[in-house]
Amino acid sequence: MIKYQSSNINSLSQLTLDRGLHYGDGLFETIAIHSGIAQLLNEHITRLSESCLRLKIEGVDFLKIQKEIEQQAKITDEGVLKLIVTRGSGGRGYSTPDIVNASYMILQYPLPNYNRKFWNKGVAIKKCELVLANQPLLAGMKHLNRLENVMAKMEIENSEYQEGILCDSTQNIIEATSSNVFIVLNNNVFTPKLDKCGVSGVMRDEVIKKLHENRINIEVLNIPFEDILNADEIFLTNSVIGIWPVAKFNERMYSNFPIARMLMTSLKINYDV
Amino acid sequence: MIKYQSSNINSLSQLTLDRGLHYGDGLFETIAIHSGIAQLLNEHITRLSESCLRLKIEGVDFLKIQKEIEQQAKITDEGVLKLIVTRGSGGRGYSTPDIVNASYMILQYPLPNYNRKFWNKGVAIKKCELVLANQPLLAGMKHLNRLENVMAKMEIENSEYQEGILCDSTQNIIEATSSNVFIVLNNNVFTPKLDKCGVSGVMRDEVIKKLHENRINIEVLNIPFEDILNADEIFLTNSVIGIWPVAKFNERMYSNFPIARMLMTSLKINYDV
Repeated sequence: MIKYQSSNINSLSQLTLDRGLHYGDGLFETIAIHSGIAQLLNEHITRLSESCLRLKIEGVDFLKIQKEIEQQAKITDEGVLKLIVTRGSGGRGYSTPDIVNASYMILQYPLPNYNRKFWNKGVAIKKCELVLANQPLLAGMKHLNRLENVMAKMEIENSEYQEGILCDSTQNIIEATSSNVFIVLNNNVFTPKLDKCGVSGVMRDEVIKKLHENRINIEVLNIPFEDILNADEIFLTNSVIGIWPVAKFNERMYSNFPIARMLMTSLKINYDV
Repeated sequence: MIKYQSSNINSLSQLTLDRGLHYGDGLFETIAIHSGIAQLLNEHITRLSESCLRLKIEGVDFLKIQKEIEQQAKITDEGVLKLIVTRGSGGRGYSTPDIVNASYMILQYPLPNYNRKFWNKGVAIKKCELVLANQPLLAGMKHLNRLENVMAKMEIENSEYQEGILCDSTQNIIEATSSNVFIVLNNNVFTPKLDKCGVSGVMRDEVIKKLHENRINIEVLNIPFEDILNADEIFLTNSVIGIWPVAKFNERMYSNFPIARMLMTSLKINYDV
């Protein structure tokens, strides 16, 4: 399934000691490759470097990594490159003083084999029971501490649902199991603030930018769960899927997604069957 | 530094795909080895198996792992064995459906070279600024999502402090950066409930048991931070250190630790210089 792996880790023994494995002490990026181009690569690398600053992960050669991804994208043509960066090996317990070299891994996966109708007709979603914990210190980052997402995804595995909506303890919507959420109410678009929990997706930023360019009102704010029940339109975004309109949430069905359609056209996301 | 590694992972390529690395989707145990005996091994394996049930991690051969640790303990004589168990390799994204074989790794470290006075005279601690997030679904487990501990430990690195006190968002005490906390007030002992966050240490359970055996009143409850300021005695526990009395917290100094001393004697923890 994996066609390519590249890393500055040279041995099984070294990776066994890596802090990514021991503590989830690192970050990742999932980059779509289309026609040999790594999509939104600058944005991915920018998010990664900002998160490294926040986690105080040092010694990452971003330029080298970016060049390697660009080269590998050409060979990949169509697929996904996953980049993992960790603080590296070493340190006694949680302490980090003697670590100077971050680790990185680049893995090539095929594009996921999703049903084309998820883009064309929309997906079915439900609310997950799992409540996301508030941790402002880690909020927004695509870090390697992802047990909440793993547990939330279990709630929809082997079900009719493709994604699950996740709320925080104040019952504000935050995100979906592996995507960001946008809702449309009276031609205004809203997406949750991610300053207490959730992952701030690269595609989320891109969609916000496109909405601004198209002079559609977009607001980033706290969204109570009730608001999604009244939405005229709901759509999900991430780097690999681009945009999925929502066809079914709870008992409500949607068959028109004008804002999602406009964005998919604008972002050149092919949604024809 | 590492003298021994054992695992059911056979290649760098396999470990690169492990969910322990990608999502922190696993657990660990840190087991002290003294005189060739793995201390509290049954308790460690019990906690691990209970946590595997909670995380729905399947296919762990606990009996085989326990036997291997017992054998390696004999050769180690004095040291630490760290056991990591993960959900294994595979699954698309966060999903877990096709995974049947958990991964495990056993790593041997020397005993940490702590100053003997930490046991004899006590340690200095301070309150960390980091606030632990409430996630009841993961609370109590020694899982691999440990970024909070890494970030908290940074607050005391290169300082006079050996450990930091961590509170939750309601300003209840939860634990220390890599240990559990006990406080003594009027000959009653209190330790925080860990049903919303924190790690429920094997040594914490052992200390609670010893207090019961010695007919000292011990209560597990929510402890507001203010209570630690008035404590007659504070001590920290984990599997490797056993018990550290606290000599200094904020501006308060402690030189007598009668309960900690009694427990150290009872648990055969050598605190003589």
